[in-house]
Amino acid sequence: MKIALAQINTIIGDFENNLKKVIKFTKKAEKRGADIVIFPELTFTGYPPRDLLEKKSFIEKNIEILHRYKKTVGETAAVVGFVSWNKNNTGKPIFNSGAFIHKGEIKLIFDKCLLPTYDVFDEARYFEPSKKAKGFLEFKGKKIGLTICEDFWNEPEIFQHRLYQYDPVEDLANKGVDLFISIMASPYNVGKIDFREKIYKTVAKKYGIPIATVNLIGGNDDILFDGNSFCVDSNGKIFSKAYDFKEDLLVVDFENGIGKIKETSKSEEEEILKALIMGTRDYTHKCSFKSAVIGLSGGIDSALTAKIAADALGSENVVGVMMPSMYSSEGSIKDSEKLAKNIGISLKNVPISETYYKYLKILNPHFEGKEKDKTEENLQARIRGNILMAFSNKFGHLVLSTGNKSELAVGYSTLYGDMCGGLAVISDLLKTRVYKVVNFINRNEEIIPHEIVEKPPSAELRPGQKDQDELPPYEVLDPILSLYIEDLLSPSDIVSQGYPEKIVKKITTMVDKNEYKRRQAPPGLRITSKAFGYGRRLPIVQKFFLNEGK
Amino acid sequence: MKIALAQINTIIGDFENNLKKVIKFTKKAEKRGADIVIFPELTFTGYPPRDLLEKKSFIEKNIEILHRYKKTVGETAAVVGFVSWNKNNTGKPIFNSGAFIHKGEIKLIFDKCLLPTYDVFDEARYFEPSKKAKGFLEFKGKKIGLTICEDFWNEPEIFQHRLYQYDPVEDLANKGVDLFISIMASPYNVGKIDFREKIYKTVAKKYGIPIATVNLIGGNDDILFDGNSFCVDSNGKIFSKAYDFKEDLLVVDFENGIGKIKETSKSEEEEILKALIMGTRDYTHKCSFKSAVIGLSGGIDSALTAKIAADALGSENVVGVMMPSMYSSEGSIKDSEKLAKNIGISLKNVPISETYYKYLKILNPHFEGKEKDKTEENLQARIRGNILMAFSNKFGHLVLSTGNKSELAVGYSTLYGDMCGGLAVISDLLKTRVYKVVNFINRNEEIIPHEIVEKPPSAELRPGQKDQDELPPYEVLDPILSLYIEDLLSPSDIVSQGYPEKIVKKITTMVDKNEYKRRQAPPGLRITSKAFGYGRRLPIVQKFFLNEGK
Repeated sequence: MKIALAQINTIIGDFENNLKKVIKFTKKAEKRGADIVIFPELTFTGYPPRDLLEKKSFIEKNIEILHRYKKTVGETAAVVGFVSWNKNNTGKPIFNSGAFIHKGEIKLIFDKCLLPTYDVFDEARYFEPSKKAKGFLEFKGKKIGLTICEDFWNEPEIFQHRLYQYDPVEDLANKGVDLFISIMASPYNVGKIDFREKIYKTVAKKYGIPIATVNLIGGNDDILFDGNSFCVDSNGKIFSKAYDFKEDLLVVDFENGIGKIKETSKSEEEEILKALIMGTRDYTHKCSFKSAVIGLSGGIDSALTAKIAADALGSENVVGVMMPSMYSSEGSIKDSEKLAKNIGISLKNVPISETYYKYLKILNPHFEGKEKDKTEENLQARIRGNILMAFSNKFGHLVLSTGNKSELAVGYSTLYGDMCGGLAVISDLLKTRVYKVVNFINRNEEIIPHEIVEKPPSAELRPGQKDQDELPPYEVLDPILSLYIEDLLSPSDIVSQGYPEKIVKKITTMVDKNEYKRRQAPPGLRITSKAFGYGRRLPIVQKFFLNEGK
Repeated sequence: MKIALAQINTIIGDFENNLKKVIKFTKKAEKRGADIVIFPELTFTGYPPRDLLEKKSFIEKNIEILHRYKKTVGETAAVVGFVSWNKNNTGKPIFNSGAFIHKGEIKLIFDKCLLPTYDVFDEARYFEPSKKAKGFLEFKGKKIGLTICEDFWNEPEIFQHRLYQYDPVEDLANKGVDLFISIMASPYNVGKIDFREKIYKTVAKKYGIPIATVNLIGGNDDILFDGNSFCVDSNGKIFSKAYDFKEDLLVVDFENGIGKIKETSKSEEEEILKALIMGTRDYTHKCSFKSAVIGLSGGIDSALTAKIAADALGSENVVGVMMPSMYSSEGSIKDSEKLAKNIGISLKNVPISETYYKYLKILNPHFEGKEKDKTEENLQARIRGNILMAFSNKFGHLVLSTGNKSELAVGYSTLYGDMCGGLAVISDLLKTRVYKVVNFINRNEEIIPHEIVEKPPSAELRPGQKDQDELPPYEVLDPILSLYIEDLLSPSDIVSQGYPEKIVKKITTMVDKNEYKRRQAPPGLRITSKAFGYGRRLPIVQKFFLNEGK
């Protein structure tokens, strides 16, 4: 039996175009002799559709599209994901479903049993879970078990604490399945690809049943899907694999265990870079922007953001804007010029001092007797934000913000200033990871100028300012942030891992106190298991951090 | 049997202070001869704690506090809400629980069965549901049924389509309960109080069992709890009721069906106004701000916001800032002065024209050959935003933003401009409702000057600009917005209700296209069943609106 994994990039709610793409991939699979072509979870709606799922017209449209697609299916059977109505009079009104279609007819509809409701996932908000695995059918002499994403993520050998009591995979395996098909929309984060493969390898080996998986690729707002669709044989070995971070159609011969292994990323940094480029391209283009504008400070964050934008959109579609003040070092300008030349983007220079002094002039009568403080520093950052937004409004460029995760975590950033933008490209990269990715980019030749890489980080909002005057060194800060944010450890747990108590208290309090800023931040591309945004929902008003450990 | 309803205002995660308050109310209830004192759902953590529930240290602290409280409980028994560990090795790690405590001992722990997972609620994200109602005990000769909030919200006489299969109330009633106790954290929205009472009245009558309810009061970020705790007799009649929007301790004699009926709001407008004042006060004070700053445009939105702030924080703690440009009408200044005088707030004047021209000077070299457009209009709004933020930074005032729901819906607002702020006070009020609330404020005397109420709405960003040049009249716009956002109707459904197709298409497309702005808006006080924010989660990138109805 030949299975085609159709690893496609869809747009949420773009039913007509998603349908066209699905038909195109189906025809290709047919030409290449596939018996079955399989598509990602929620094929026609895109994933995650969020509260669009609460609109009746959205569900009806997706069913209409399914039926139009059904008629186009011929010899090559197809497995697609869609939303079906729950016809019972209790429970959520819809199911997250799959359909097995052959020769113009739906042969089987199966509903997702396990609904992820954690981190970025809200499936219990919308869907009724199926209480029993219904994805079982015989096709061309094979017994096939059909599942949807999370249905596979409850294997006791992997999860010591299981989130769900029911195990649909066990249930289907006990029915004597010859082959599993798993359609997924499984988002990327660092470490996820290995973990995902481990689950499927473990299950295949445990039951001695091969598995074909297909995953979504593409960026939808902040969430990035990596593809990496693969097939596992009955010994738990991956024998075929699709590309990462791009569309693919992989046709796999399960009879003989033959399929290509496409080249995928070789390092964490390569993987992250591909993810961010894809995410930036998809957000920009899916929002119907062609070009982007970025404030270039002469620092490493804006340099990395600009490089990613140039790779994502074409360097001719990226504008860098330098906005020097009286506190900017001369290097800032020269280094930005070198960067712009290296990556081929155009460069503008809009000095801000005059505007800054004008603000002081109109504000000073009201600020009499008050010392200079953060007010004046923030003002500079906000003038720069306004200028970038003016470029955006005038030329239709998307503003890409350049803050990293360390800054955003401790609030070392100005709301409505450097936080301005439609998309935060590197907001899920701790500063130490920013350096690692830049070093990867520079592995063969100097693309990000070494002057930028080597200079001590500074916001340049007052004379001689350095990040390290106000923050611990990033080598200390970042692991604390990672333990606190990604691993959810308490300050005292972090201290017990050997970090200085005073610093841990200071940092974790800063993280909590700056929730209000992050609430107004642009969406940021998610590359860790816990990014700021949808997957991390904290109250702004809360006093736990003040009392913790007391 | 005498039951005390302790309707308290807590702060999320502020365990020590919440505990103090609970002890204080318990002692008071004891003095007043109560047999049982009951507290709102999740008494010690506050509601909703959101992802703080994923922190082990948070759960452990809440259990420590419960045990410290337990020791203080004497003759008067207490019912409190807390988070308990799920000791099974499958499922979510915690339960949303209640404890019945008497004479220093926990007599019963019961877990919530029905977990709301819709709108602003995410309970399935955190909690394992209890499969069986365990809230049953005998106390002083009475059989008492104990439930938590949503457990009561599955009555088939009320909900034709039930979200849950299990009915814990029916189960307990069948055990022969003499009295129900329901501890709640049930947020306010227009129409909610009647609906909530209807559920409890229906259930009490159906089973012939009286009910004591207690609800939270206070604002937690965007979510407002109205209190309105009440008692229903076995005929379904409310015979005692606590205040709305303030703390209360209501002691009710269930033996004789005697209890006070406190005075609550008499109109929708009064209710909304109380909700917004409480929400503004709580957000400001719980965030440790004392004072607020507001941009006064001379329009009705900023006038209403200023009046609410003055009532919430004391007029001496509110600063109004006028920021006239060359396009501001003379009336704007005079009207703002009159308003400030009427409501007793201080007033600053910071003209923006010079700063605006300075921006044009530095930008124009880059904008050659381009016409004036939205860029220049947004620039003015953003200068104003910067000035307000400078006042905030310099004096420690919270910036209150003044946009209404109609504006925010269609994107008739400037990101980083008039959308700046820590809290959006009236962002869940459609413009027509803004007028209604202002008329309520002015019912006895002119507080908001009539000049402000009567002038045609204008952003004053170019000469002679009026809202109605770009938008349909608010009397047409607002019902369409309400049907689209609150009732989730499709554009074609709205058209079939008699609204012009062209306008409906235009408006609904504007709503969808401006999701990106709202994603970066400050939290806004929620007063309808569907506010922007946590309760409404839409992708930024989506193309459904372009295709709908095609």
